[in-house]
Amino acid sequence: MENKTLSDIKINLVEHSKINDIDFENLSFGNVFTDHMLVCDYTNGEWNTPEIKAYAPFTIEPSARVFHYGQAIFEGMKAYKDEQDDVWLFRPDQNYERFNKSAVRLAMPEVPQDVFIDGLKKLLQIEKDWVKRGNGKSLYIRPFMIATSSGVIASPSLNYRFCIILSPAKSYYSGEVKVVIADHYSRAANGGIGAAKAAGNYSAQFYPTKLANEKGFQQIIWTDDATHTKLEEAGTMNVFFRINDTLYTAPTSERILDGVTRKSLIELAKRENINVEVKSVLVEELIAAAKDGSLKEIFGAGTAAVVNPIAGFGYKDEYFELPKLEKSFALHLKEKLTNIQTKVEPDTFGWTVKI
Amino acid sequence: MENKTLSDIKINLVEHSKINDIDFENLSFGNVFTDHMLVCDYTNGEWNTPEIKAYAPFTIEPSARVFHYGQAIFEGMKAYKDEQDDVWLFRPDQNYERFNKSAVRLAMPEVPQDVFIDGLKKLLQIEKDWVKRGNGKSLYIRPFMIATSSGVIASPSLNYRFCIILSPAKSYYSGEVKVVIADHYSRAANGGIGAAKAAGNYSAQFYPTKLANEKGFQQIIWTDDATHTKLEEAGTMNVFFRINDTLYTAPTSERILDGVTRKSLIELAKRENINVEVKSVLVEELIAAAKDGSLKEIFGAGTAAVVNPIAGFGYKDEYFELPKLEKSFALHLKEKLTNIQTKVEPDTFGWTVKI
Ligand SMILES: Cc1ncc(COP(=O)(O)O)c(C=O)c1O
Ligand SMILES: Cc1ncc(COP(=O)(O)O)c(C=O)c1O
Repeated sequence: MENKTLSDIKINLVEHSKINDIDFENLSFGNVFTDHMLVCDYTNGEWNTPEIKAYAPFTIEPSARVFHYGQAIFEGMKAYKDEQDDVWLFRPDQNYERFNKSAVRLAMPEVPQDVFIDGLKKLLQIEKDWVKRGNGKSLYIRPFMIATSSGVIASPSLNYRFCIILSPAKSYYSGEVKVVIADHYSRAANGGIGAAKAAGNYSAQFYPTKLANEKGFQQIIWTDDATHTKLEEAGTMNVFFRINDTLYTAPTSERILDGVTRKSLIELAKRENINVEVKSVLVEELIAAAKDGSLKEIFGAGTAAVVNPIAGFGYKDEYFELPKLEKSFALHLKEKLTNIQTKVEPDTFGWTVKI
Repeated sequence: MENKTLSDIKINLVEHSKINDIDFENLSFGNVFTDHMLVCDYTNGEWNTPEIKAYAPFTIEPSARVFHYGQAIFEGMKAYKDEQDDVWLFRPDQNYERFNKSAVRLAMPEVPQDVFIDGLKKLLQIEKDWVKRGNGKSLYIRPFMIATSSGVIASPSLNYRFCIILSPAKSYYSGEVKVVIADHYSRAANGGIGAAKAAGNYSAQFYPTKLANEKGFQQIIWTDDATHTKLEEAGTMNVFFRINDTLYTAPTSERILDGVTRKSLIELAKRENINVEVKSVLVEELIAAAKDGSLKEIFGAGTAAVVNPIAGFGYKDEYFELPKLEKSFALHLKEKLTNIQTKVEPDTFGWTVKI
C-alpha cells in the first residue's frame, strides 16, 4: 500500500455553500448531500491523488464494469457534534477495515488509510457546519468504491473510483417495526458475499422485502439459506434476541455482516452487566420462547438507527406480538451507546475519534 | 405495460462513423462499441420515449442507487450476418423474457417489448455494417438496466435507465479450458438471485475465480452452496457432462441461469439423436465416471463461446484429464447450432429472427 501524505489531497472548494437552503429539521434519510465530496481514482495499478471538490455527477461509460458486473462496495458511518462543537467519529478503524475486507472479496483494490481515514477527516473539517448538534442529529458518511473500466467482459475491472459523500441526518425513527422470518428467500450463502458490504447484497433483498411489506412487515429477519432454521440478521441491521434476561445474537460468519453497532453493543452490554451470548438462535427456539413468555425483546443494531426495537414478528401464518417493557435492554443500550457517540457520557472504550 | 409504437423512437445519428478505425480481425471481446446506443429512461412510473444516439458516457449522481445497492441487470445476445448480408437474431424473445424476470427479482420495472425488441431491431438496422460475415464473427448485444435515483437509502430506486450497447466480436476462442469444482465458495443460494442475470452475481465470482486462476484453472464449476455435492453451472456458462453416450445437464432452479444456449442444445441434441437428460450430476458421480472412463466430455454452453469444450477438471487436490475424442458431441452440436444461427443450415426450429 502506498503512503501518501495528507498534503497530497487536492482541494477545490465551492464558491457558494448550499447549507442555508437546507431545512435541517425536515430531512429524509440519505437524500441531501453536502457541498463537497472526496474522489480518488485507481488507475494503472495505483491510487491517484485524492481530490475534495464540489458534489457533482460522475461521467461514466455505459460499459463501465460497475453497471454490468456489480463490483461496488460501501460503508456507512456517522459523525456527531458535541456540546463544544467538536466533531467525532465512532470507531472509524472498524469501517475502514471492513471496507478493505469487502474490497478483497469483490476482487477490488484495497484503499490506503490516508485516502480513507485522513481524507475523510479532511472532508469533515471542511464540512463541519453540516454536522448539527443534539437530539439524534448526525452527518451520515458514505464511503464507496465502484469499478470504472470499460468493457462487457466478466472479469475484474482495472480501474476504480473511491468516493466519500456526506448526508446530514436527523434522529432516525422508522415507526413501529414488525419483522417476518424468512422461510423461502435468502440474503446470503455459505461461500458467498454476505459478509461483504457489497452493493449486490442489497438489491437482492428488495423484492422479498416488497412481498413482506405487502403483508404488513417492514423488514425481514434472514435465516440460513440451506435450512431456514437459524436466525441471522436483518437487511441492514444485525439482530439481538432477549430471552429471559440473556441477549443472544448470531455469530458472524461468511453469511453475516460483522456490524460495528453489534460488536459495540456486545461490549457495552457486558459493561452494563447484561448477559450476552453470541450464539445462533433457532427459529423453533424463538417461537417456543414467544409462546412461553420468555421472549422479552428483539431489536436490530446498525449505524442508521443505532438500536431499532421490534414490535413483533411473523413466521409462516402466525404473528407474535412482543411485550411492551418498562425496562427494555434495547432502549437502555441505545441511550448508553448514543451518549458515548455524542460525548454526553465518557467513552471508557476509546471508541470515539476527534476530527 | 405501455404500448409505444416504433415511430416513438427519437433518432440522432452521429455525423462521422468510427467504423473505419476498427480492425475487425483483431478484436478483444467486449471492448469496442458501435457508433450508437439505445437509451430509455423510466421516470414517474413510466417509460419515456427511447432514443438512439451516439455511444457516449452517462452523467450519473454519485448517490445513484446502482452504485450503492446494486440494482443492475443485463442480457447477452448476438446478431449474425448471412451470405445475403441479412442480419439475424437468435431467439431474442428468450432474452427479452429472461430480462424481465431478472427485473422482477431485483424489484425493477419490466421493459416493454417495443422498447427492448423493436428498439433493438431499429438499432441493428442502423448499425448493420458493424455485423460482419463469416468465421464466427458476430455483433454482441448488451441490453442492460440500472437504477438511477439519487439517495443512499436501501430501498428500490424510483428511476431507471434501460440501454442497449453493441460490440463487434470475432470467433471466441479462450484457449484450453480447465475447470475446478467449487468446494467452498458459491455463486448462488436457494431463495437468492442466481437465476437472475443480475450484475451482483458476477462480481461475487471474481475473487474465487482469481484463486482458481492461480492454481491453473480458467473457470469454476459451481456446486450447490449447502452441500457442494451437486454440479450446477460455470460463471457465464451452463454445463453439460457426457457419460458414455448420454448428455447430462443440471435442471434450472433458483440457483441456475436458464441459458438460451443450454435449452437450444437440449432440443438440438434430441434432433441429432443424442440422448440428453436434465438431471443433477453429483460430484462423486463425476469423479467415479472420470475414474472408470465413462466420462467422455464436459462442455460449457453460453452465448459468448456457444460451446466451450473443457480439457479437464480439478477437485480438491486431484486433477482429471478428459479424453480427446474423434467424435465429440460438443463440436458436433457447436457446428450445428452455429450453422442455424448464421443461416448456413435451415432453421427447423424457428429460432432465428430477421432484422
Ligand atoms: C446487512 C447489514 N447488516 C448489519 C449492518 C449493521 O452494521 P453497522 O452496525 O456496522 O452499521 C449493516 C449496515 O448498516 C448491514 O448493511
Ligand atoms: C451465469 C450464467 N450461466 C449461463 C449463461 C449462458 O446463458 P446463455 O446461453 O443464455 O448465454 C450465462 C450467460 O451468458 C451466465 O451468465
